[in-house]
Amino acid sequence: MAGMPTEPPRQAVNLAAMLSQFDDHWSPRTVAEFNGHDVMVVKVEGEFVWHHHDDTDDFFLVLNGRITIRLHDGDVSLGPGELFVVPAGVEHQPVAAEEAELLLIEPRGTPNTGDVATAAERIII
Amino acid sequence: MAGMPTEPPRQAVNLAAMLSQFDDHWSPRTVAEFNGHDVMVVKVEGEFVWHHHDDTDDFFLVLNGRITIRLHDGDVSLGPGELFVVPAGVEHQPVAAEEAELLLIEPRGTPNTGDVATAAERIII
Repeated sequence: MAGMPTEPPRQAVNLAAMLSQFDDHWSPRTVAEFNGHDVMVVKVEGEFVWHHHDDTDDFFLVLNGRITIRLHDGDVSLGPGELFVVPAGVEHQPVAAEEAELLLIEPRGTPNTGDVATAAERIII
Repeated sequence: MAGMPTEPPRQAVNLAAMLSQFDDHWSPRTVAEFNGHDVMVVKVEGEFVWHHHDDTDDFFLVLNGRITIRLHDGDVSLGPGELFVVPAGVEHQPVAAEEAELLLIEPRGTPNTGDVATAAERIII
């Protein structure tokens, strides 16, 4: 009926297709929402800042490439199909010697650096 | 010091290694915890029951194989590297013509059928 809002068809999110839409690093794109969280893909390369999140765990799943999550009590190395959850409050520094692609999940609106002043803006694709 | 509890070393969760530890279907294993949610791997084959979750979205990411999530307003087909979030309250039926392997995320203690009487027990590996 004219003027009636229509629901978009439900469809899967293809992570590789989402990742093909951008090239910049450390700038997560939201591809789905889940229980008040943003499900995001991101490309990373080099060193991110040391940071922590007071109130949320930090979920990393490597899709392609390798990253190291530096922690004060040891490093965690992650390849494709490996995940790690940094507990809330734990300071960490993600680093990638070469470009890597990740799935991240964070509560909607979480600043990626743990600090709104330095965080990337939220981008939805 | 004798008697002092020691933290296990932090390490990545390798999803393939977790999946190699069991063969049964529709019985998710918790491999990590994240913001009050269980992060789980599961093997599926055949048809699950139609069900819904009143209070939580239902997160599916296909790791290997293919699944279809039947919904009353259309089916969603998912292959490797594809995800779909079934919104809370939406009735759905996951089916897999051949064995598939999935990553699931649900609030800790969510019955997998939406009903504690028929749900699989929580298994942590």
